[in-house]
Amino acid sequence: MATRGTGGIAAVRCAGRIGVVASVAMNLAWIAMYIRRRYFGGGSRSDNNGGVTTVEPSKGKPPVTEDSIVNLDHGDPTMYEEFWRGIGDSASIFIPGWQTMSYFSDLGGICWFVEPGFEREVRRLHRLVGNAMVDGYHVLVGTGSTQLFQAVLYALSPASDGTPMNVVSPAPYYSSYPSVTNFLNSGLYRWGGDANTFDGDTCIELICSPNNPDGGIRRAVVKSKYSKAVYDFAYYWPQYTPITEAADHDIMLFTVSKCTGHAGTRLGWALVKDTEVAQKMIKFIELNTIGVSKDSQLRAAKIIGAVCNSYELSSAGKTSHLFHFAKEKMAERWIRLRAAVAASDIFALPNELSGYCSFSMETITANPPFAWLHCKKDDIEDLEGFLRLKKIITRGGTKFGVDGRVVRVSMVDTDQAFNVFIYRLATMN
Amino acid sequence: MATRGTGGIAAVRCAGRIGVVASVAMNLAWIAMYIRRRYFGGGSRSDNNGGVTTVEPSKGKPPVTEDSIVNLDHGDPTMYEEFWRGIGDSASIFIPGWQTMSYFSDLGGICWFVEPGFEREVRRLHRLVGNAMVDGYHVLVGTGSTQLFQAVLYALSPASDGTPMNVVSPAPYYSSYPSVTNFLNSGLYRWGGDANTFDGDTCIELICSPNNPDGGIRRAVVKSKYSKAVYDFAYYWPQYTPITEAADHDIMLFTVSKCTGHAGTRLGWALVKDTEVAQKMIKFIELNTIGVSKDSQLRAAKIIGAVCNSYELSSAGKTSHLFHFAKEKMAERWIRLRAAVAASDIFALPNELSGYCSFSMETITANPPFAWLHCKKDDIEDLEGFLRLKKIITRGGTKFGVDGRVVRVSMVDTDQAFNVFIYRLATMN
Repeated sequence: MATRGTGGIAAVRCAGRIGVVASVAMNLAWIAMYIRRRYFGGGSRSDNNGGVTTVEPSKGKPPVTEDSIVNLDHGDPTMYEEFWRGIGDSASIFIPGWQTMSYFSDLGGICWFVEPGFEREVRRLHRLVGNAMVDGYHVLVGTGSTQLFQAVLYALSPASDGTPMNVVSPAPYYSSYPSVTNFLNSGLYRWGGDANTFDGDTCIELICSPNNPDGGIRRAVVKSKYSKAVYDFAYYWPQYTPITEAADHDIMLFTVSKCTGHAGTRLGWALVKDTEVAQKMIKFIELNTIGVSKDSQLRAAKIIGAVCNSYELSSAGKTSHLFHFAKEKMAERWIRLRAAVAASDIFALPNELSGYCSFSMETITANPPFAWLHCKKDDIEDLEGFLRLKKIITRGGTKFGVDGRVVRVSMVDTDQAFNVFIYRLATMN
Repeated sequence: MATRGTGGIAAVRCAGRIGVVASVAMNLAWIAMYIRRRYFGGGSRSDNNGGVTTVEPSKGKPPVTEDSIVNLDHGDPTMYEEFWRGIGDSASIFIPGWQTMSYFSDLGGICWFVEPGFEREVRRLHRLVGNAMVDGYHVLVGTGSTQLFQAVLYALSPASDGTPMNVVSPAPYYSSYPSVTNFLNSGLYRWGGDANTFDGDTCIELICSPNNPDGGIRRAVVKSKYSKAVYDFAYYWPQYTPITEAADHDIMLFTVSKCTGHAGTRLGWALVKDTEVAQKMIKFIELNTIGVSKDSQLRAAKIIGAVCNSYELSSAGKTSHLFHFAKEKMAERWIRLRAAVAASDIFALPNELSGYCSFSMETITANPPFAWLHCKKDDIEDLEGFLRLKKIITRGGTKFGVDGRVVRVSMVDTDQAFNVFIYRLATMN
């Protein structure tokens, strides 16, 4: 699953608003006009006079300056924009006005809403990277892997005695697991907490590996034969961790957000072995959103296809290799982060992991997408709050089922944001 | 909300499979190879040898022939493809590989995941058509209006005493309302059935107008002051019904699926007056899918912009007027349907409605997107089953809270499908 922004959108919004307010503080009349136009109509040329409106895409979070708030709460993968800008139009897509209007994509297959082209590119990508088996698996698509996670809960619940299924994960666990499990107060499933202390027999265990937030390599910890393991492989890609095996678990979740960096496309996929489980997951997505955006699927297919082409076609240059670009970038950032932590003397990080990567064909160091930053000072019990005073927005340990002396920091934001973060960190004490 | 395919995807899949099997029956070896390649890997040129893969979009349901199954179960709006093919590239979109990668779209506004360009075009469209007020409303975006419907349930629940909120709608009601309300067995809300017979005080009343399935013009029927009305305006567009007022209810839902015909884009929007309700709906979408596909939003913005331009720019020809194209098409279909029903002598339809349309500036007849077809023969109690024997797939009355002597038939499918349907209907007795 993706960045999984559910915990702290308010914080980003806050940062965004502060940025907007600061930059226009000299012109309150302009703000009033802006608010009126956006929310209460009136006054805009393109709204009223029928001029040709160009649809400008949004730009994401506001740019970071030396003095501004740096928001590293979410794993917003804007680091990748530089790569995609650099490779020309091989991942661009043109969609004619008349295309893919039907609800239906694939009436011959098990999943009526998956675009065959998307499914084909997903299988091709896993064969290229070698991180998961695809033969004998159904490929399902979802509106991000968050939707697929809910589809899995629906498919595997309730428990055989009809009571709500317990959903557990070893702490520290991804902060959205509890909230996404519980927000509808479903009678089918409920959050059961830390898998390490779960004492029941029947549960769904979520295994995120490499783990969000701490980058650890995980295996199922619940030993009961009634436990159903769900692998969240959002980060099992060669820029973050050595590829050590082609995983072949029953249910495995992936997302383009952290693989190629296209979070705004909201697209994830699941590899599912059992046909009945797959069918129930499809039913969930049918009821929840009547399928998944075809535009996103076509775009993701084009992007994944471009990644595969760059490795498989001898004519493609090395500069167009996504995983190599991202791995170098992440490695450089981790070196700088470890240096800054050493300089500050009040922080600590998990130990480096390394291993032989079958994709890179060499022993490499893991470069997790998040830094799991501990504070060594006894008087700082709320590290998130401490860093917020330094205008660095992170996500505190309590949201991940542990204490507040640790925070999760995104390592995949823009260079600008990362640079300011590192500078501030190195000078803290 | 859209066609709202949740009831009978299995039926379409069945039809699709029959079609596939029929067309390749002579070549079992080919089928075996196809299945192996799609589900169990191996053998495909594009999968294995690194050739440049082109991403071919899907084509929707298989073409209809004189003898084939005609599937009119869903309101799959493929009728509109002809229009969009005819107007050139004014609604086409190009998305560079590096665009809109961030999760965030609009950090200055209330809804962090709405593309400002999409919101602007939605406001412009409502001002053009005059079917809803936009000044003073928040515009929220959802993965189809189905997701927004669930966001509304989440925002307005539970009841003030903490018990699950009853969700009701006057029968015949859209067949997905009960299943979408109940599928997660939420403790926040539950399906309460026909609004006409609801005897409680507190509820959410869903008002679909024109109504899916029967095209009726609806107002709230629950009179309690504790009832919260939610207007599903999927079909309140001038091709289907006279625009009689700019609606100004607290919560109004719309979708591009039935407005422009782009069901595969999975995009809906809500106009919401109350800020607190809007914030809770946003929270739902944040937890459910971490926002909404930006690709879909940008594409929908381009499409809606093209519709507005064609009416607002004097240089645009009349042939590029979406609502006029669709109204003429629907009117012609309804004339042919009424003639076929008269010829068969065993069917009946609801009476024609008409009224002055402020958009068309004339009195027009309503052309509902679905035909609500009654059977007059006493011995046919399962009209859906009766028509299935004639290879016409429809959706039976029991799914809409009434009896099986009536079915819903889509009026927005391809010309081909509609023609075969009309021919078969006229010759039934």
